[in-house]
Amino acid sequence: MSRPVRVAAVGLGRWANVLADAYTRSDEVELVSCFSRSPGKREAFAKRYGTGQDASLEALLARDDLDGVIVTVPNDQHAAVIEQAAAAGKHAFVEKPIAVTLEDARRIERAVERAGVVFTCGHSARRLGGLRKIKAMMTSGEIGEVSVIEAVFANERGLQIEPGNWRGDPEKAPGGPLTQLGIHQIDNLQYLLGPVVRVATFGKPMYTRVENDTVNVTVLEFERGPMAYLGTNWACPGVFSLNVYGTTADLFYQLDFSWWSNSDVTDQHSSLTKRAFARATDDPDDFELTDVAVDIPRVDHLRDEVEEFARAVRGDTEAEVDARVATRNVAVMLAAVRSSREGRIVEVAELLD
Amino acid sequence: MSRPVRVAAVGLGRWANVLADAYTRSDEVELVSCFSRSPGKREAFAKRYGTGQDASLEALLARDDLDGVIVTVPNDQHAAVIEQAAAAGKHAFVEKPIAVTLEDARRIERAVERAGVVFTCGHSARRLGGLRKIKAMMTSGEIGEVSVIEAVFANERGLQIEPGNWRGDPEKAPGGPLTQLGIHQIDNLQYLLGPVVRVATFGKPMYTRVENDTVNVTVLEFERGPMAYLGTNWACPGVFSLNVYGTTADLFYQLDFSWWSNSDVTDQHSSLTKRAFARATDDPDDFELTDVAVDIPRVDHLRDEVEEFARAVRGDTEAEVDARVATRNVAVMLAAVRSSREGRIVEVAELLD
Repeated sequence: MSRPVRVAAVGLGRWANVLADAYTRSDEVELVSCFSRSPGKREAFAKRYGTGQDASLEALLARDDLDGVIVTVPNDQHAAVIEQAAAAGKHAFVEKPIAVTLEDARRIERAVERAGVVFTCGHSARRLGGLRKIKAMMTSGEIGEVSVIEAVFANERGLQIEPGNWRGDPEKAPGGPLTQLGIHQIDNLQYLLGPVVRVATFGKPMYTRVENDTVNVTVLEFERGPMAYLGTNWACPGVFSLNVYGTTADLFYQLDFSWWSNSDVTDQHSSLTKRAFARATDDPDDFELTDVAVDIPRVDHLRDEVEEFARAVRGDTEAEVDARVATRNVAVMLAAVRSSREGRIVEVAELLD
Repeated sequence: MSRPVRVAAVGLGRWANVLADAYTRSDEVELVSCFSRSPGKREAFAKRYGTGQDASLEALLARDDLDGVIVTVPNDQHAAVIEQAAAAGKHAFVEKPIAVTLEDARRIERAVERAGVVFTCGHSARRLGGLRKIKAMMTSGEIGEVSVIEAVFANERGLQIEPGNWRGDPEKAPGGPLTQLGIHQIDNLQYLLGPVVRVATFGKPMYTRVENDTVNVTVLEFERGPMAYLGTNWACPGVFSLNVYGTTADLFYQLDFSWWSNSDVTDQHSSLTKRAFARATDDPDDFELTDVAVDIPRVDHLRDEVEEFARAVRGDTEAEVDARVATRNVAVMLAAVRSSREGRIVEVAELLD
């Protein structure tokens, strides 16, 4: 292996730590510096990971011992930070969603293309062992032809949001859990079924003190025919599930959300079940279904995404989730928000034209 | 107990036998006769259950040893048969759906009201032990406030429908599995959450030789606030599931569809799991969820619905699923079909006005 790719963390909130826990386990990446506007956060992060720190983004980007940045600043600051990084010739990994507006997503697309730097967006969920296995089972034909996928991502966050928090602001987190959680499952759905063409969403604030949506239900139709349901909820104990309905088998995937942030063991706390006919006859009352547990390969999803970024920086691979893929996810998310707000079915093309 | 209520089976297809298997286990009901246009079916049914038979519906309804009829003729003949039965002063139990048009449903409502006979519709699924338990847990508050319910009913029927079969006809089975399977879950959803106000549905024929829909995905919004998803599918191995998202707990209910027609043991082949916090802290990465199996009371759902009908005939109770309730289910089903066909969100009130 060539030398590790040298990265710096930009934005040092909770998720920067969760991610750094994962990628500092890797030999392919070396964390050399960090930046946040808050000196306290810089100090704590630098100490925790034994890394350098820079007092400004300009100083950090001027370093010649730096290949790329790991960006976890708030969603609406992604575009500005990545434009600056790209202009300085630094590669960029950004936490999902790439942006919360298509204008910002396109600014990022243009900036990284113009600078010729590597860009990837942190849709880690498609890297989970269960998702990789589901994709392989769909591709091999062992569950027949797929008609529907149901994806749910839920936690209790909306019950606790304080008024004034950005998560409660419909501009900063449009659709609430649709932006913050749903974007993961939208990526999974487009990863498994290709582009979404239209969506219908009902959403509203429920059991919360903020004005933003905390619960949404969405149906989606895909270009190649299948349909899907997306449930996103900030008003219940955590759920991350994905069910696939095939002509010869159904798949039921569940992940224990307690282990979401412990990416080295998330797959250990997941289950995938395959349901098929054990016996079938011409008599609709005489058959037997059987549920069988499917082995899941183990992947450290948060480490895996940063390692792939490093390999792409070295030119050994292409980023799986590039700016175009990430922008397509945002378009579906914003189509769902528009559907909910305007009370009508929305074509994704409306937003992309 | 007073003497058993005397019933006759009208329509002697597969489901008439499944139902009779269940209600002939009861002491509250006595099967005295049967009718079908097919003499072979009459002969076989009369022999199987040791009951009389009548060569015409008129002759059957003229019997003075008969209290009520158990109607399982095709959906589009329900209204005519029940009008005739009611006019003859006979009480009527009809298999779901009450009808496939609101005109027919209202003919039935008027006929039974005018005649003052007992009427009930066979929405047996709400009688399953799991559904009764979920309702009790929602009412007691032990899962907090409910935001979303997801209900799925699926089987492989659409893969096998021969061209020309009534199930493949969009007029006789509008929406395909939405009518034939979804109506059960629509009843469950309105039983648990009250009236639906609007729906959005995508549906289409998939992996079938007929022109009718075989797959539909629907989102629903309820008058009292919560939302739901309904998945109905004729293109996969059987699934009957219902998930409830509450502010303090989630419930996951699954029924092994292999045992659907064996109503005395359906509940034994079901599971209900409650997910709640075992431990929670202010740190969003430090908590623990726990899944606990919930005991399900055992109910013979197909026997239970006919026994309730018998008790209502004796005046000991009121029918839980009367014509009004059953018609409300059809209205939601037809709103979903309209949404799918017209590509727009549909208010249920549009159909009821």
